[in-house]
Amino acid sequence: MRAVVLGDSLELQSERPTPTPLADEVLVRVLVAGVCETDLQLVKGYMGFRGVLGHEFVGVAESGPLAGRRVVGEINCACWRCETCKGGRPSHCPNRTVLGILNHDGAFADVIAVPQRNLHAVPDAIPTDHAVFTEPLAAAFQILEQVAIRTTDRVVVLGDGRLGNLCAQVLASVSSRVLVVGKHPEKLAMLAGLGLATAVLADVPAERWADVVVDCTGSETGLPTSLSLVRPRGTIVLKTTIAGTQTLAWAPFVIDEVTLVGSRCGPFDRALTALAAGRVDVRPLISTRYDLSSGVAALATARDKSVLKVLIDVEQS
Amino acid sequence: MRAVVLGDSLELQSERPTPTPLADEVLVRVLVAGVCETDLQLVKGYMGFRGVLGHEFVGVAESGPLAGRRVVGEINCACWRCETCKGGRPSHCPNRTVLGILNHDGAFADVIAVPQRNLHAVPDAIPTDHAVFTEPLAAAFQILEQVAIRTTDRVVVLGDGRLGNLCAQVLASVSSRVLVVGKHPEKLAMLAGLGLATAVLADVPAERWADVVVDCTGSETGLPTSLSLVRPRGTIVLKTTIAGTQTLAWAPFVIDEVTLVGSRCGPFDRALTALAAGRVDVRPLISTRYDLSSGVAALATARDKSVLKVLIDVEQS
Repeated sequence: MRAVVLGDSLELQSERPTPTPLADEVLVRVLVAGVCETDLQLVKGYMGFRGVLGHEFVGVAESGPLAGRRVVGEINCACWRCETCKGGRPSHCPNRTVLGILNHDGAFADVIAVPQRNLHAVPDAIPTDHAVFTEPLAAAFQILEQVAIRTTDRVVVLGDGRLGNLCAQVLASVSSRVLVVGKHPEKLAMLAGLGLATAVLADVPAERWADVVVDCTGSETGLPTSLSLVRPRGTIVLKTTIAGTQTLAWAPFVIDEVTLVGSRCGPFDRALTALAAGRVDVRPLISTRYDLSSGVAALATARDKSVLKVLIDVEQS
Repeated sequence: MRAVVLGDSLELQSERPTPTPLADEVLVRVLVAGVCETDLQLVKGYMGFRGVLGHEFVGVAESGPLAGRRVVGEINCACWRCETCKGGRPSHCPNRTVLGILNHDGAFADVIAVPQRNLHAVPDAIPTDHAVFTEPLAAAFQILEQVAIRTTDRVVVLGDGRLGNLCAQVLASVSSRVLVVGKHPEKLAMLAGLGLATAVLADVPAERWADVVVDCTGSETGLPTSLSLVRPRGTIVLKTTIAGTQTLAWAPFVIDEVTLVGSRCGPFDRALTALAAGRVDVRPLISTRYDLSSGVAALATARDKSVLKVLIDVEQS
């Protein structure tokens, strides 16, 4: 099969063996996949991953109870036997593999092997191009699982990129005072077109007024900026992952009693419900698309800061 | 009056003018004061404070509704007019002064001026030497105001010093699985004598099993150690304040969805209630005591890692 493979370099392989599913896995023929910031970080060496990239996808299950249906798949493949899994945190299983990220070949390929229990059927109401946003949209919904946000809370989403956009749309469903702060006028204009309040970072008052700040910058400047905007006893939700170490003064967390909440993967069911109901508009996020055979070029394009989501077409549904 | 004053150096002044109370303040004759880690940090330059040190004290109010009674005082002097105060967070008032820490002379003196509304009467059941622990004990109780801890939660208190000891005693009132992790066998033995489980850091399994870790180390090693012990989706309570910047990898907060809660001053009423009921035993914490005239020596002694609380006797009650 075809696959975009990260080895010493990134390459398209045209005769990669189809994955052999484990006992609890089914094969999924991929229809469309999405390129994520994490994919770009992996190419730079984050996590030391080697294998087929890609963890945002829609496909068709080849076997199991969902055979023949369109599916999306949660990315953490848990052991379901350890203390962490038994404690109700399978996405944090220390024995886990992660699709396209950790010891598990991903979705930039004709076929991916996915644990049956990770699969969710895609409702007919959701076009495939929208369903491919289920995984990042679930990550946005994870914020609501972790932090109680009230209608009157002043929420700042730092970052106008792919994840910032989805987080802003999700947060606007619970707070009427969401402000997206970014650096790219054209991306902010798109968010304004979705009815969201926006501001360029340089225009935001250097005061500490936000009840909640969500760092979706993907940059090490995100956390210091978040601290400069959050009020005492406010909450910073950290979505940014960066390789290496970062330097920061810790005392303000204590002096101002700020809470920092690390936030990663989220509930697919909430994301699918929102997509089916049209409560999140992902269409403006699709910047461009490439055939899987040009997958390497797709990743190169996704590096362009003016680009939002790059889709990879694998098979026509 | 006498006062321990931090200027270019630390000195005892014997003829410092008695403070002039503001309209909302009363003068308090100090009976006993306690030396805190923050005092030692201030001497090193933290906060750039200049003036009379000391923020843990018991005294006798000279005027106002509590005149003639023993009192303790909350340390944050708020403006009560700004958005933060009106929002119910006066201890975070951006216009605040802080007794002995920020633009307000402290309690290592014969007399201190304190806002009337900051004062709490000390119940007769509490000896003065115990009541002097109200402020740091309130800081320990603040953890319970911020984090919901269950009886079965595995709680690690990192640090066997003054604050670690108080935090451990408070946390043991809500969890039956508190472990104090320290480096000083004699301090750990004292905690064991109070019925607490203890361990030397080197003997703690390098696994991530704690539901809650409270960093009371006062050291920049505290947070990395906390991260190595807390389970995914667990909580780190940060009590340590250090000057300058610290270096750490941020990605684990996101990958493991760890929550960090900065924690500072707390509820005096809960601390006084616990002291009156004898639910917290502060007696073993008193290592030594000095007369105010030897206040500079008192602070020097408090630097000794084998010493817990140093008291300063100001006036016999």
